[in-house]
Amino acid sequence: MPLDRMRSLELHRKARGKIKIYPTVNIHSEEDLALAYVPGSVAPALAIQENVEKSFEYTGKGNRVAVISDGTAILGLGDVGPEAGMPVIEGKCLLFKLFGDVNAIPLCVNSPRNAEDIIHLAMMLAPNFGGINIEDISSPNTFTVVRELQNRLDIPVFCDDQQGTAVVVLSGLWNALEIVAKRLSEISIVICGAGAAGIATAELLFTAGAKNITVLNSTGILGPENPNMNHVQEELSKKTNPEGRKGGIDAALRGADVLIGVSRGGVISQEAVASMNDRSIVFALALPEPEIDVEAARAAGAAVVATGLLRENANPMLNLHAFPGIMRGALDVRATTFTPGMFLAAAETLATAVDRRRLTPQHILPSVFSDEVAPRIAEAVAQTAVREGVAANPLPAGTVYNETWQRLFAHIMGAI
Amino acid sequence: MPLDRMRSLELHRKARGKIKIYPTVNIHSEEDLALAYVPGSVAPALAIQENVEKSFEYTGKGNRVAVISDGTAILGLGDVGPEAGMPVIEGKCLLFKLFGDVNAIPLCVNSPRNAEDIIHLAMMLAPNFGGINIEDISSPNTFTVVRELQNRLDIPVFCDDQQGTAVVVLSGLWNALEIVAKRLSEISIVICGAGAAGIATAELLFTAGAKNITVLNSTGILGPENPNMNHVQEELSKKTNPEGRKGGIDAALRGADVLIGVSRGGVISQEAVASMNDRSIVFALALPEPEIDVEAARAAGAAVVATGLLRENANPMLNLHAFPGIMRGALDVRATTFTPGMFLAAAETLATAVDRRRLTPQHILPSVFSDEVAPRIAEAVAQTAVREGVAANPLPAGTVYNETWQRLFAHIMGAI
Repeated sequence: MPLDRMRSLELHRKARGKIKIYPTVNIHSEEDLALAYVPGSVAPALAIQENVEKSFEYTGKGNRVAVISDGTAILGLGDVGPEAGMPVIEGKCLLFKLFGDVNAIPLCVNSPRNAEDIIHLAMMLAPNFGGINIEDISSPNTFTVVRELQNRLDIPVFCDDQQGTAVVVLSGLWNALEIVAKRLSEISIVICGAGAAGIATAELLFTAGAKNITVLNSTGILGPENPNMNHVQEELSKKTNPEGRKGGIDAALRGADVLIGVSRGGVISQEAVASMNDRSIVFALALPEPEIDVEAARAAGAAVVATGLLRENANPMLNLHAFPGIMRGALDVRATTFTPGMFLAAAETLATAVDRRRLTPQHILPSVFSDEVAPRIAEAVAQTAVREGVAANPLPAGTVYNETWQRLFAHIMGAI
Repeated sequence: MPLDRMRSLELHRKARGKIKIYPTVNIHSEEDLALAYVPGSVAPALAIQENVEKSFEYTGKGNRVAVISDGTAILGLGDVGPEAGMPVIEGKCLLFKLFGDVNAIPLCVNSPRNAEDIIHLAMMLAPNFGGINIEDISSPNTFTVVRELQNRLDIPVFCDDQQGTAVVVLSGLWNALEIVAKRLSEISIVICGAGAAGIATAELLFTAGAKNITVLNSTGILGPENPNMNHVQEELSKKTNPEGRKGGIDAALRGADVLIGVSRGGVISQEAVASMNDRSIVFALALPEPEIDVEAARAAGAAVVATGLLRENANPMLNLHAFPGIMRGALDVRATTFTPGMFLAAAETLATAVDRRRLTPQHILPSVFSDEVAPRIAEAVAQTAVREGVAANPLPAGTVYNETWQRLFAHIMGAI
């Protein structure tokens, strides 16, 4: 077994859960117990019964998020089931805590490919949570679940596979376009992969002003000639391909300015990249292997190449760049939903977090370990929610976001 | 507003959740991230996909418990809804952690009085948990939920309102009987209250050897003449009252040896206690006010009086005496269910945790702050599970339960 696999198994065996529960209140005496449990819980219970909004004041709900998956689309592994999905979902909860100070609860649901079940479950559990993160549910169920929950619930419902990826791609694309001196509204974009990430990215890019987007699934360009589309792909194709083009990735890439790969490793050839427009941009985001190797894409003429790999020269674009700050900001003002404006604000903040003097083809996004990014995104998302009227609470008065953050961060990291 | 109510509101406002999530793994570098998240989660995911049992080894499942309530029977408050139930359920999770080192997740379910919904939800969430604790669900739904889940799942399902109370009552009763020199098999026991606690207590007392138990609900002795029984009460009454006695609490108590009150404050008169047998035992466990005041019961001739109140002279019998150790022990050996034998072992351990020389009518159970009780109960429950063949894992080899415990305990308490 390779060393890194052994090390990760060892880490997981030792941790027995990458997160745990921790008390915020201590109980040393009868008085402590009376205050924190019985009868001490009666006063907040009655206050909440009178006004259910008080649950944000007297319980952990406001900073607690459910991370819900059915284990059907775990990373590049596909449908591995709820138990096998758990290391990934617990990992996500770990990142929510370390990078966003969000208390995320892993909930891997034993109800494969049943969107109605998951919606019903999330509705029943909603009283416990300030937000919901739908994770690694296969497409198109992921869309059904997120849309329905957002329609029915008054807490923000996020899907990192969808909007998280879309935000990071838009950020990276803005910065890459600055480098190659092109405009979003004038370029031709090809999105290879029409799952959660591909569809949501197309939608956010349209919102941001893109005009020309071609989306492909494994059977080619989405459109009337594609024999194998789900209902979400069919709907999108009316916008991306009204003229009814057909063909595979090679045809689609010819003359394109941007390739966004959110599909599978190795599906893009050097010839295809070479057939793109001058000063082309290639985001090969498939994991664990990109659609095309970084060096191969550069050699084929791509001016900016980025991947989902956290490696020095791979120009990493990770969801981790965005999701902790996005959820943090939504929770901080008790956003009742996510709007496209909030995602645009997050993307803009992430893009501008890179010092313009450091912006190069090899460096289009900030380090994921920057301790400024998440608080900045949080602040932008929170401000936008307030401005757009979807925040139940005002921005915390006089917040110096970054200072608060650093303190929390230091606390979490230091105390282990 | 009374000072203690203000103080408890203040504590809850400050805590904003009596529990939080805490990372067990830190991420400082690309390498840390790769090991703990992507691709590091892939190796344990694949190992679990191959053998689902490995989820106990590589994730937090084995030490994680769902505390599920629908908010319909919260303390003495009744049906306050899932949000208002949350301070109590979070409090329970806090106690699970502080007293049992169990990672308990509060799940207040928005599906009032729908046992099928809760069963379905718990079944879907079971992959995440090593055990389930059903809490503050109104009777008879609480019985339906616990029985069905225990039948369908291979993890232990506990209900503190039912078995937790029953264990503590049996412990206290054994010690009280020692004081008054009577035998469980020969005495007449009256249980006032036929909700979750009353029914389960009757069942465990029968298992322990009691022969003569009379149970009452608010319309009198359970039996053919009682106009207002649910299906669980009706079933029990065939065992407790085959002769078809009728009447209220006063009639029932006449000549009885033991009163176990699990009903409402103030429902027992001094005259009724005075009409009991010589050397009578009164457990007045209703909260926040007992069925009869301690001093009043003593004045009426009761030889041993105990309550659910954590007060110096009130001879406290709290569920906290038992539930952390019971769940701890079940998780430690991956019990697949709870058996009556495990509950009897817990009760016996709790009873014998009181030094015989310190056993007095005013002191029948150990302090809830004793750091020996929970580990001893855990060990007894674990050993019984192994002996009865319902443990998937063996007892941890060479465990010195108490030492392990003290270390965990000190760690938790010291680090806040």
